[in-house]
Amino acid sequence: MTINAVGYAASSARAKLKPLALERQDPLPNEVQIAVLYCGVCHSDIHQCENDWGNTVYPCMPGHEVVGRVVNKGALVTKHAIGDLVGVGCMIDSCHECAPCLAGEEQYCQGPNSWLATYNGPMKPAKQAKTGENMYGRDNTFGGYSDQIVVREDFVLKIPAALPIEAAAPILCAGVTTYSPMKHWGVKPGHKVGVVGLGGLGDMAVKIARAMGAEVTVFTRHKDKVAVAHKVGAKSVVEGDDKAYTALEGHFDLILSTVPEKHEVDPFIPLLKHDGAFVAVGALAPMPGWNHMQMVMGRKTIAGSLIGSIAETQEVLDFCATHGIAPDIQLIPIQEINEAYKYVKSGEVRFRYVIDAASLAQDRVA
Amino acid sequence: MTINAVGYAASSARAKLKPLALERQDPLPNEVQIAVLYCGVCHSDIHQCENDWGNTVYPCMPGHEVVGRVVNKGALVTKHAIGDLVGVGCMIDSCHECAPCLAGEEQYCQGPNSWLATYNGPMKPAKQAKTGENMYGRDNTFGGYSDQIVVREDFVLKIPAALPIEAAAPILCAGVTTYSPMKHWGVKPGHKVGVVGLGGLGDMAVKIARAMGAEVTVFTRHKDKVAVAHKVGAKSVVEGDDKAYTALEGHFDLILSTVPEKHEVDPFIPLLKHDGAFVAVGALAPMPGWNHMQMVMGRKTIAGSLIGSIAETQEVLDFCATHGIAPDIQLIPIQEINEAYKYVKSGEVRFRYVIDAASLAQDRVA
Repeated sequence: MTINAVGYAASSARAKLKPLALERQDPLPNEVQIAVLYCGVCHSDIHQCENDWGNTVYPCMPGHEVVGRVVNKGALVTKHAIGDLVGVGCMIDSCHECAPCLAGEEQYCQGPNSWLATYNGPMKPAKQAKTGENMYGRDNTFGGYSDQIVVREDFVLKIPAALPIEAAAPILCAGVTTYSPMKHWGVKPGHKVGVVGLGGLGDMAVKIARAMGAEVTVFTRHKDKVAVAHKVGAKSVVEGDDKAYTALEGHFDLILSTVPEKHEVDPFIPLLKHDGAFVAVGALAPMPGWNHMQMVMGRKTIAGSLIGSIAETQEVLDFCATHGIAPDIQLIPIQEINEAYKYVKSGEVRFRYVIDAASLAQDRVA
Repeated sequence: MTINAVGYAASSARAKLKPLALERQDPLPNEVQIAVLYCGVCHSDIHQCENDWGNTVYPCMPGHEVVGRVVNKGALVTKHAIGDLVGVGCMIDSCHECAPCLAGEEQYCQGPNSWLATYNGPMKPAKQAKTGENMYGRDNTFGGYSDQIVVREDFVLKIPAALPIEAAAPILCAGVTTYSPMKHWGVKPGHKVGVVGLGGLGDMAVKIARAMGAEVTVFTRHKDKVAVAHKVGAKSVVEGDDKAYTALEGHFDLILSTVPEKHEVDPFIPLLKHDGAFVAVGALAPMPGWNHMQMVMGRKTIAGSLIGSIAETQEVLDFCATHGIAPDIQLIPIQEINEAYKYVKSGEVRFRYVIDAASLAQDRVA
C-alpha cells in the first residue's frame, strides 16, 4: 500500500519549487507515518535545490525541520503513539554499525553511504549493487515540504509540550547545529561566546549560549540587526569596524560562525582566548587563508561541526523547553516559498521562515 | 660583577653571524651560571636573525637549545648544584601571575610582555616605563650561541644521565615542540600520526610518536629522506603523489606539520579521521585557504601549538631518556654556523646541527 502525498520540489538547479504529487510507502514495522504540521526553511534547502554542493538529485523536495503528528505506525513501534507530536530533523537513517554510529554520533556515520538525509538521499553517493540497490535501497528521499512523511521511529524526536509547536521546527536543524558544537567545546557559565551571522542559526546560537550561562557578542554586517541581536540576548554587537575588533582581542572562549557561505576567518582569530576555538557550521565552502602565527601563539583552533546526533537533537528540544527559548519565526504558506528563498539568500532575513503545511491542502490532487 | 662571555650574533637582517664579546651579569640569588657545552640550531634562529617575523632586536645572538654545566649559583638556588648537567630551552622567564602561568603553561604567558625568550627578549614588545624599564628590565636577551649563560633556576632543566649530552640539546625545542601537541591532542598506542616535514622537528616527532605507541607516516617532498624516515621509525612515507593521499583518507588521528614556512593544509584534511586534528607548529606565517566542507563533515580541527611548558620540557627530556630516543645530530664548530644555515634553509638537512661550544674558545679575546 502507498500513501498519496503532495509536496513542493525543484526539478532542476534553476527551477522554482512547484507542487509535486508523490507516493510514500506505508510504514514498515519500525516506522511511523507523520502528518506534517510545520516545516522550517533552512539556507541549506536553497544550496541543495540550486546544486551548490554538486550532489543534488532531482526532483529535490527539501525540508529537514519537520514537526507533525503520528497518524499511523508499524507493529513494532514502541517509542511513539498515534497522536503524538513528533519531529524529524536532518537524518532519517544511518548505518548503525560504524564507530561514530556506535558512539551515538550518527551525523558522522562512516557507513558505505554515510547517513540517510531526510531529503536528497544518502550523504555519500549511493553505490549501486548488482541488484540496483544501495545500502538504503534508495537514491533520493523527499523532505518535509510535504504533507506526509514516513520515518524510522528511532530517528523521530519527541516535541516537548512546553514548546510552541510551530517554533519547534527550526530547533531540529538550526537548534541542534548550534547546540552540538557549544556542548562539544564545553560552553560554561561565564564563558564568552561570539556568534557570527544572525539568521536562523545565529538566532538559536545566541539564545542557547545565553541559556548555557555564556555572555554573547553578535557579529553582523546588517545595521538593522543590531537591535534584534540585543533583543534575542546578545550583550554586545559588533558591526565590523576595526576598533571594535581590537578591543575584543583575547576575549572569546568560542566563536561560532553561522554564515552560510565563504567568509574571512582571520580577523576572528586574535579575538580568541588561549585554547579558544573558531567553529564554522554554516560555510560548506572553500575559505580564504589565515595567519598561523596567531594560532600558534595561543594554541587556537579552527574547526567544523555538522548538525548534531539524534540524542543531541532530543536534548536541545528539551533544553529549549526547559529554558523557555524558541526560534523567532514567521509562518508562511508553502505557495510563498520561492519568495521566501529570495529573502533568505539576501541575508536580510532575521527570523526563520516556517511553512504552515495546512497550505498544502490546496495543491492536493482531488 | 660581570662575566666576560663570547658568542655569535647577527648585526642586521642581512648580516652573517660573527663573534661578539658580551658581558653577562653575575647570577642573582635565584639564578645559575651555566658554562655552555652544546647548543642546537633551530630553523627559527634563522627566521629571527633575518627578521622574518618583523620583531628582531639587534644584535641577535640565537640559541635556545642549550646544554651545559652549572659553574656558579645564587645563594637561594636549591634545584641545581654546581657541576650539574642542565639545559635551557626557549624561555628564561614569564610573568608568573596570568592564568596560563598559574596553570603551568608559561609558553602562553599573557603578562604585559608575555614570556621572556632565551634570545631576542620579551615575546611582546617591551613597553618602556618612565624609568626606561619594561617588566623584565631588558629589551634584548642573548642566547646559547655563546660560552656562558645566566638563567633563573626554575627555567633550567635537568639533563637525565641516560641521554647523550650533545643530543640532549635539540630536545629542548624540537623535542618539546612536538611532544607538547601530541600530549595535548592525546596520542595513544595504536593511534595513527602523520608527520609533515622531516627536519629537526620531524625527526623528533617521529621518534616521540612511536615511543607513545603510535603508527607514524611521514610526508616529505625530498626523495632522499624516504630511507631516513623509515630508519627513524616511520611505518610509511608519502612523497606527495595523489594516489597515496587518496589511499590514506580518514586514516589519521593527528597530523603534525613541522614545515617551518607557509604550506598547503587542504590536502591533509581528508586524511584525518572524525575528530582528527591537523596541528602546524612550524609555520608562523600566512597560510593558504582550505575547503571547510571537509572540516564540517568530520568535526575536524586545524590548530597551532607553541613549544611547550617548562614542566613539559622536563617531561620530554625524561621521556626520551626512558625510551632511549634522541635526535639525529651533526656536531659543528660555531665557525661553520653561516654555512649550516644555508643547508637548513634549503630544507635538505635531515638532522639537527648542534654547535660544539668548545669551538668558541678561539674567538675569546685574550
